[in-house]
Amino acid sequence: MLPATAPEAGEPKDHFIQRDGIAFAGSHLIIDLYDAERLDDLDHIEQTMVRCVEEAGATLLHIHLHPFEPNGGISGVAVLAESHISIHSWPERGYAALDVFMCGDAEPQRCVEVLRKAFSPARIAVQELLRGKGA
Amino acid sequence: MLPATAPEAGEPKDHFIQRDGIAFAGSHLIIDLYDAERLDDLDHIEQTMVRCVEEAGATLLHIHLHPFEPNGGISGVAVLAESHISIHSWPERGYAALDVFMCGDAEPQRCVEVLRKAFSPARIAVQELLRGKGA
Repeated sequence: MLPATAPEAGEPKDHFIQRDGIAFAGSHLIIDLYDAERLDDLDHIEQTMVRCVEEAGATLLHIHLHPFEPNGGISGVAVLAESHISIHSWPERGYAALDVFMCGDAEPQRCVEVLRKAFSPARIAVQELLRGKGA
Repeated sequence: MLPATAPEAGEPKDHFIQRDGIAFAGSHLIIDLYDAERLDDLDHIEQTMVRCVEEAGATLLHIHLHPFEPNGGISGVAVLAESHISIHSWPERGYAALDVFMCGDAEPQRCVEVLRKAFSPARIAVQELLRGKGA
């Protein structure tokens, strides 16, 4: 019998990430899409979020999307075994605000190319926050 | 009959926020709790998220929490009419990563005091990102 504190295979929350001598809880990407397309297409947004999860090597636990009237904006969140992805869109401005937060071995940077292909933005801004340094 | 593009009362996604001459989509608070308590208490975390929504004057649309084994960590997301709140906790480190993203007239800063009372952290770090400037 394993001790109660033994990590299980694939358990994402048991260890901080180690990179270049820094320990942190997870990589949190703040992603802005400008002059983007299909930001009012709920099915497309849901499929793109699922594709992001797959490309990043993450595990989807729960997904929820909500459409807004009258502008056609969409809010969506995906809860992952590795944290979450969110999107909020303002189609009338061609703008979408996303964040992709992943711990463990997942690769959140791989979502950026998925988003570029899905929404054809004129510009993408990506900022990485290393959450939990010093915790 | 109103024109199809007329904003509805309380519609949060129709206009960007104006503050000090800057237009932006929403205020996104990146909040880190260090040496905090009750980070493995699912009911307490859910109640605290709901309290944050109320204090900020926001509208809850959907909430989902997920507990992890073996460390007792919790992931939770709340979808709001004004965007979202998320929390991911590492109780074994006393650390929790939150983000509070709100557009419209909601007051996300009011969540900080709610979190301080709920989790008694030794330290809270708060960073504000103004999402969608220039969109």
